[in-house]
Amino acid sequence: MSDAFPVVGIDVLRPLLDRPRVIESVRRALIAHARGQVQSPMPGQLLFTDPPGDCHIKYGHAHGSGSFVIKIATGFYGNSSRGLPANHGLVVIFDANTGAPRALLQDGGWLTAWRTAAATVVAASVLAPPTLRPVGIIGTGLQATLALEWLPEVFGSRPCVVWGRSATKARALADIAGSTERRVTAASRVEDVLDSCDVVITSTPSQTPLFAAASVRPGTHLVALGADSPGKQELPVELFQRAARVLTDDHAQCLDHGDFGAAVRAGAIRADADTVLGVELDVPRPFERGPDDITIVDLTGIAAEDIAIAGLFAELLGLLD
Amino acid sequence: MSDAFPVVGIDVLRPLLDRPRVIESVRRALIAHARGQVQSPMPGQLLFTDPPGDCHIKYGHAHGSGSFVIKIATGFYGNSSRGLPANHGLVVIFDANTGAPRALLQDGGWLTAWRTAAATVVAASVLAPPTLRPVGIIGTGLQATLALEWLPEVFGSRPCVVWGRSATKARALADIAGSTERRVTAASRVEDVLDSCDVVITSTPSQTPLFAAASVRPGTHLVALGADSPGKQELPVELFQRAARVLTDDHAQCLDHGDFGAAVRAGAIRADADTVLGVELDVPRPFERGPDDITIVDLTGIAAEDIAIAGLFAELLGLLD
Repeated sequence: MSDAFPVVGIDVLRPLLDRPRVIESVRRALIAHARGQVQSPMPGQLLFTDPPGDCHIKYGHAHGSGSFVIKIATGFYGNSSRGLPANHGLVVIFDANTGAPRALLQDGGWLTAWRTAAATVVAASVLAPPTLRPVGIIGTGLQATLALEWLPEVFGSRPCVVWGRSATKARALADIAGSTERRVTAASRVEDVLDSCDVVITSTPSQTPLFAAASVRPGTHLVALGADSPGKQELPVELFQRAARVLTDDHAQCLDHGDFGAAVRAGAIRADADTVLGVELDVPRPFERGPDDITIVDLTGIAAEDIAIAGLFAELLGLLD
Repeated sequence: MSDAFPVVGIDVLRPLLDRPRVIESVRRALIAHARGQVQSPMPGQLLFTDPPGDCHIKYGHAHGSGSFVIKIATGFYGNSSRGLPANHGLVVIFDANTGAPRALLQDGGWLTAWRTAAATVVAASVLAPPTLRPVGIIGTGLQATLALEWLPEVFGSRPCVVWGRSATKARALADIAGSTERRVTAASRVEDVLDSCDVVITSTPSQTPLFAAASVRPGTHLVALGADSPGKQELPVELFQRAARVLTDDHAQCLDHGDFGAAVRAGAIRADADTVLGVELDVPRPFERGPDDITIVDLTGIAAEDIAIAGLFAELLGLLD
């Protein structure tokens, strides 16, 4: 029962990051998940109050794969004020034929961050209105930053507008993310994002809606990725009443703790009114939006994505040969 | 988000094993769990069919502790026939103030094995009849072997009788475990164990009852620890009808996949008829058995035990200073 397995640090992982390959593997994982080709029980969760924090355990096995994956990610949002990173994590890859651990990716939460960025841009592009208006980002944390970095993979040089509770952080983020190829500006009010953008990504740890439903223009496509634990909420529930299409990365998870679930519990939408994102990605004829349709993608993060990115890096590292 | 933490291998852990301290910390953990002083959601689980195996994720946080623990253990029982260990595992200790991983115990499943051995001898002794008849062990795998090794901690030189499906393995185990201080013999029939012993421990991956309820003598105390996943069962459900006292390490877990749950689903016992083991350990006046009482402890393994043993080794290693 003595196990020896390679421990791979973030310094080894980071140079191997290939955004298009991560995006493609996450897109395929969303489809495999929707097809029922991944054994992935409801994630495990520990919630802390003093100080506030959460720990998510996502784990699963893609049918037929020679390995399975357990991913642990923590978020302690008060860390930032102490100059510490808010997110941590690690990923363990096991041999599905023997149960032996094969590799530990000491990723510090980066694999989760990257697969979330990939899911974000996949979700942003899947129902995006066919315009060239800016893409809005609400939030200035790690996932908002990564969304800004990864958006060109699907939207090219389309400009972006950022808003955050801290105007200073929003300006700093816009300064860093902007370039001669792509204009990124900071908005002074959240409504300015909603007014100017056709695609809006919310990426905050908020526990209350970030804006009023009435502020959302017809024709807007929203991607909400902040609500990954019970008690979190970014979108006003009334927005779901107005939505022509609601996609969820996982029906049960989004019902349990996503913005979709909050809307269902408030009676704003029926519990069976969502379509699974992977189904939308998989069907030959996806939803065709009308010019005034409001569409929403609720992302809670699924084990299939963790398995996919861990498998990709394991392959790049030759860990499972 | 760059995390560096010590990775401690089994070679470092093994010399630190102190059975009495492990038993005491597991006993306290069972009590803390029963008192509701441990945040420990239902364990995560992956089940595999080809080859058959399972993976258990147990995790939690003892109230007020500066750390929390995630324990992963796998069992692939076909490994043995390929000359490979059946069990693997690892334990991660996190800082409950920041969410950062503090240490990885690359224990290969041994911490789980040891805390299970500790829980086994605690359970064997808690309601043991006041006789000096032998203690029976049904099973010849790792936990049966460890039970034999650890029993002297609570029963001194009380003799033991072992039975397994493989008579060869049972004889080999008896030869290894026996000594001039303690007689250990192999039984040729499972009924011989039930006839000669007052305390009987079942430790097998069986999916069907190991013996008939009628074979169990009045006055027997049974500890069943094999049923740690849905589909496993060691005790005949009728035995629960005859039991004067049924203890469970965790009510919900034992109801879900322990022998207790199988008996409840078969209608042999009411779902609220169990007492939590930690309560029995905690009360000033424990259950007083009559000479003909049959008593059962159903063990499924709880996160509180994993937290306790991980914390003990972390303390011995000075990992959390």
